[in-house]
Amino acid sequence: MDEISKIGVIGSGSWATAIAKILLANVPSINWYFRSDDQIKQFKAKHHNPSYLTGVLFDTDRIHFSSDINEVVQNSDTLVFAVPSAFVKSAIQPLTVSLKDKFIVSAIKGLVPDEHLIMGSYFHKIHGVPIDRVGVITGPCHAEEVALERLSYLTIACQDIRLGRELAALLTCSFIMTTVTDDIYGTEYAAVLKNIMAIASGICHGLGYGDNFQAVLISNAIQEMKRFVDTVHPISRDIKSSAYLGDLLVTCYSQFSRNRTFGTMLGKGYSVKSAQMEMLMIAEGYYAVKSIKEINDKYKVNMPITDAVYNIIYEKISPALEIRLLTEQLR
Amino acid sequence: MDEISKIGVIGSGSWATAIAKILLANVPSINWYFRSDDQIKQFKAKHHNPSYLTGVLFDTDRIHFSSDINEVVQNSDTLVFAVPSAFVKSAIQPLTVSLKDKFIVSAIKGLVPDEHLIMGSYFHKIHGVPIDRVGVITGPCHAEEVALERLSYLTIACQDIRLGRELAALLTCSFIMTTVTDDIYGTEYAAVLKNIMAIASGICHGLGYGDNFQAVLISNAIQEMKRFVDTVHPISRDIKSSAYLGDLLVTCYSQFSRNRTFGTMLGKGYSVKSAQMEMLMIAEGYYAVKSIKEINDKYKVNMPITDAVYNIIYEKISPALEIRLLTEQLR
Repeated sequence: MDEISKIGVIGSGSWATAIAKILLANVPSINWYFRSDDQIKQFKAKHHNPSYLTGVLFDTDRIHFSSDINEVVQNSDTLVFAVPSAFVKSAIQPLTVSLKDKFIVSAIKGLVPDEHLIMGSYFHKIHGVPIDRVGVITGPCHAEEVALERLSYLTIACQDIRLGRELAALLTCSFIMTTVTDDIYGTEYAAVLKNIMAIASGICHGLGYGDNFQAVLISNAIQEMKRFVDTVHPISRDIKSSAYLGDLLVTCYSQFSRNRTFGTMLGKGYSVKSAQMEMLMIAEGYYAVKSIKEINDKYKVNMPITDAVYNIIYEKISPALEIRLLTEQLR
Repeated sequence: MDEISKIGVIGSGSWATAIAKILLANVPSINWYFRSDDQIKQFKAKHHNPSYLTGVLFDTDRIHFSSDINEVVQNSDTLVFAVPSAFVKSAIQPLTVSLKDKFIVSAIKGLVPDEHLIMGSYFHKIHGVPIDRVGVITGPCHAEEVALERLSYLTIACQDIRLGRELAALLTCSFIMTTVTDDIYGTEYAAVLKNIMAIASGICHGLGYGDNFQAVLISNAIQEMKRFVDTVHPISRDIKSSAYLGDLLVTCYSQFSRNRTFGTMLGKGYSVKSAQMEMLMIAEGYYAVKSIKEINDKYKVNMPITDAVYNIIYEKISPALEIRLLTEQLR
């Protein structure tokens, strides 16, 4: 396992922090890239991430922090990317060290902006990483519950199953169970699509639709996800597995879901801008719905829920009207 | 449509009341069987069911109440059964009028005790009702939200699709949309199984498992339901449809779910008896898990969640231990 156990984590948010916590249950030390030296200083002083999952204490002697991404890449053979998809390009822009020989693992639930590529394809096509040296870490897994050490399951995708198993071993611990699959496309797309579905779920909740309706919406959502993923990357997969259906459920039903919260605010009448300002962040699904809509221009999959979310966010159609039309298309 | 529009409702609980409300949006009058004359008297005086969904007001001039089941059966061509499964046999025990020429519709989410039969099979085998004159009304649909007129979807199953469509028309209104299927076995079994899964969901919640785990549990639950239903009645069906997955979701995630509440109490350490006494009722899943377990003795489908719930309720195995073992079998 030596070839992958020198691990660098790229990102300083809650999901990056959760993954670092899990990894440190298995490896003696990790490299960890933070954009700001001040954040690193605070982390070392407080022994926790100053901004996210502040209840999780770290032995900082086991972390090689750096604000120089080249240093982190140089010293690692595995790189776990856990930054918001919108910031991937700017994060690796200063990179001069090649990624080609690295094992690149995406823990990002979004597409690369403008490129309309899942992370795996992006690292493969733009950075020359062999496709079987691309891995994906996917849930259902809210970082907040990892912090609390509540039992969670991760799915690890890699076309090289042996490599996937090695990564899974590094992510398995007393509160994390892992499953391995070769479906890097399906797991990444599902992780993107579920955020759109969670916005839809929130919008309907905000409009006053109840539990009965949510159950119908989410049943239709997983069918819509299956149609899209099976069209874009037609391999044999069970969409009812945890990595697809489970990830959708935790995002649509959990109190921790930022995408659902964003949707709820839209449903309650907030404008897109005021919802984003109130939340102090932009939900991943906001970008995802635009990318998926554009990708689907080519595939023409029937995606009524995605279309409704797009129309509400980008075409400024009234949520009440748009969802009323959607109800006619659900079964 | 004349042949089915003289409708009798058998049952006086919340689901019977919700169905009566929906029917009266479409037909001028219904027959309604209550066990007790006193309940009928109170209903007429208050213009609402004295015990369930008390906020729903009825025009009692449009309801022919009777505590004589023979009178209700005699005067109806369609009979909608909406009593707890445990009471079906005692409810129809006084029956002298034949059911053979009636359209028998099950709105019961349980199996006939001792017989291990879904309602459709029971009415067919024991009461001579032709199998294509059996209908099923299934959710996802909590009665409480029908009372509030929140948009809900019903699935109507009947092997005679034309008859199914006629019934669906009588159940479609401003707050109810309907879908028709021929899968009377799958929809009934799913309605039974989901209560077992909801007990499991509650037990895990009561034990302190979080949202991440629930998502994995429910993904595994729908796979377990598919394995069972496809084995017992192998026809083509999409288990992700609202009648199966949606019904499971609303039962596992909704605040209105009695089975989940029962499970939560077990998880928190209540004994089966004290949980039932506290709830003043017996959750359908309590009976269902015993029947399904016995039916599955023949089919031998892999059902780890069902087995765990059975062991906790009937074998008095500690919930903490049993669920710990279950976690090893989930993916």
